[in-house]
Amino acid sequence: MLNFHFYNPAQIYFGKGMEDHVGEYVSQYSNQILLHYGGGSIFKNGVYDRVTASLRKAGVRFVELGGVQPNPRLSLVRAGIQLCDENNLDFILAVGGGSTIDSAKAIAVGVQNPGDLWDYYMDPEKPIRGALPVGVVLTIPATGSESSPSSVITNEANNLKRSIASPKIIPKFAVLNPEITYTMPKYQIACGASDILSHLMERYFTPVDHVDFTDRLLEASMRTVLDNGPLALQNPTDYHVRAELMWVGTVAHNGLLNTGRIGDWATHHMEHELSGMYDIAHGAGLSIMTPAWMRYVYRENVGKFIQFSRRVFGVEYPLDDPRALVEEMLFRLETWYRRMGLPVRLSDVGIGTEHLEEMARRCMLGRGKDGHFKVLTETDVLRIYELAL
Amino acid sequence: MLNFHFYNPAQIYFGKGMEDHVGEYVSQYSNQILLHYGGGSIFKNGVYDRVTASLRKAGVRFVELGGVQPNPRLSLVRAGIQLCDENNLDFILAVGGGSTIDSAKAIAVGVQNPGDLWDYYMDPEKPIRGALPVGVVLTIPATGSESSPSSVITNEANNLKRSIASPKIIPKFAVLNPEITYTMPKYQIACGASDILSHLMERYFTPVDHVDFTDRLLEASMRTVLDNGPLALQNPTDYHVRAELMWVGTVAHNGLLNTGRIGDWATHHMEHELSGMYDIAHGAGLSIMTPAWMRYVYRENVGKFIQFSRRVFGVEYPLDDPRALVEEMLFRLETWYRRMGLPVRLSDVGIGTEHLEEMARRCMLGRGKDGHFKVLTETDVLRIYELAL
Repeated sequence: MLNFHFYNPAQIYFGKGMEDHVGEYVSQYSNQILLHYGGGSIFKNGVYDRVTASLRKAGVRFVELGGVQPNPRLSLVRAGIQLCDENNLDFILAVGGGSTIDSAKAIAVGVQNPGDLWDYYMDPEKPIRGALPVGVVLTIPATGSESSPSSVITNEANNLKRSIASPKIIPKFAVLNPEITYTMPKYQIACGASDILSHLMERYFTPVDHVDFTDRLLEASMRTVLDNGPLALQNPTDYHVRAELMWVGTVAHNGLLNTGRIGDWATHHMEHELSGMYDIAHGAGLSIMTPAWMRYVYRENVGKFIQFSRRVFGVEYPLDDPRALVEEMLFRLETWYRRMGLPVRLSDVGIGTEHLEEMARRCMLGRGKDGHFKVLTETDVLRIYELAL
Repeated sequence: MLNFHFYNPAQIYFGKGMEDHVGEYVSQYSNQILLHYGGGSIFKNGVYDRVTASLRKAGVRFVELGGVQPNPRLSLVRAGIQLCDENNLDFILAVGGGSTIDSAKAIAVGVQNPGDLWDYYMDPEKPIRGALPVGVVLTIPATGSESSPSSVITNEANNLKRSIASPKIIPKFAVLNPEITYTMPKYQIACGASDILSHLMERYFTPVDHVDFTDRLLEASMRTVLDNGPLALQNPTDYHVRAELMWVGTVAHNGLLNTGRIGDWATHHMEHELSGMYDIAHGAGLSIMTPAWMRYVYRENVGKFIQFSRRVFGVEYPLDDPRALVEEMLFRLETWYRRMGLPVRLSDVGIGTEHLEEMARRCMLGRGKDGHFKVLTETDVLRIYELAL
């Protein structure tokens, strides 16, 4: 176990009807804010009306900036920074999923730091001096951004997707009402569950040993996603199923499950290139890249993969043929993805070999190598893309 | 799953040598503090020297108050309040285990609230307006008080042990160095592990259903205690074993594992009467009271006990005889306690029937009923004490 510093001061308000109180929560910080959101779903499901009613009741003035897209764009972030500057807004309320929250965090950093915002995303070492406080009303359980210290933004000028991380951008509060997720399209629920599962797997496959407590917490969390994902598709209005998924999504990314260890994250980075190049959802990219990554790297630490296969997927095969054991786990993992309606091969979404080399090259831009469980070169990344065909 | 608010802003500094930086951490809050500790162990193991050197280096002036005893006393708390008032101390650094931390929290509340401090402990509804900030250098993994919102104090005038809870008394930071625990007596390690396990079981046995995610996190945590407890006794200087125990002890009580559910806590309360009446360690009282409580209540929700027996203790007996299955789990639990050198019956520590009725009566003072998994009357509590004979 490595030395660590753990700190997550996000206030979580979880449960039915919690969004009706968001005005009270916001007014502890500010009374003139940027209200940031994505497309039309919050207008259809009533969340926009309930949130704005609560803000008005609490006397909070808000300027609106909608239009956040999946894989949130730098250009909208720049517009948000300008809006905050022009209107002296000193708080950002993100109403949406990970894209909206990440966009809000980017605006928060842009307002309070000198120079061009994109420089901070290209250089993870560049110090972030401050950030406007951000609050969240979560509508999509997936990224964990509602209590995480990170933000991922796509620069449409060069199609690069990059991230920043700082405790300064942990949201001050997040409102989580599982009922809000009832009307989500099934494919979006599936992609969200895939993203949560991936956050847990990225952390699980660590080069650090003697981390059994956090291993077990991660296994517990993965079991929760695996059990509740299919139930959420079958019974969209089962409150408890949605509650389990929503809460595990937050805990997966709040830092606790990463204490004393470092994650791998190569799968996420390879997926970022995939969804940067093609119009594919992040969760669907992950369900394609994860099995390929596993097949390529498992020999690096067979024991870890055996533990994962046994404890998470219940594969109790004899240990004298680890490859058969791991392949059985992969069969069960791929079956789960397919049951969730997600692709597990590039060919499932009509992608061939045409851009694999370019994606492998771009994946290494500003990095050189990638991953921690197994350190990958550009050649390794290309082989993994090929395994995913 | 119940609605909940989760908030734990404690900063955790975990790992080797962390206590050498405590002066830096304290100086972010104050430069004149109360340094609060217990007996002689911190002088023998060098912790006192390292902490005071770090405070001096950071320019922090400190007034010392040692002498905290197990089951910390109200009289010393009152002395601490007076010291803070007389010397204008506005921060308390607790160097020790749960007793020292709980005593520091009590002083912190006493300084900033009107009236008699004990009234707050006797009336959990009495609002706590504020508290001095508290920091911790943890020397004993056990109570989880280093990041919890609670404090337990014994009033030696009437021998009552009572608690308060408020987010205002969550420590600002806690320094956790597993190396500090190497020199702890084995019996103290065992009692600490028993206390951690009990915090997890108190939360696990809830009347709330649909809490599988937190159930699984609790099971993961219990497995960690069960696996690492005996290893800690066998290899006192195994860093990783001590690290697992120390971190699970904190996480067990930081609020996360209680989200969306309510715990039982009757076993803790019955134990408080036991260690209030007799000179017995809290962890040893728990290893006596827990099996007795389980035998008395398991029929209340057999399914929960079957799940516990299977997932935590690996009892894969057929389900057609739940009593045999639960008894096998109890055999394994009691075997674990005995392996840890802990008693499992009152007779193991020479206690007979002489005060059982008095303890049952006192357990109900100010409560009327107790427990949530099964609500217990005074008669129930007496029966459980008798089962523990």
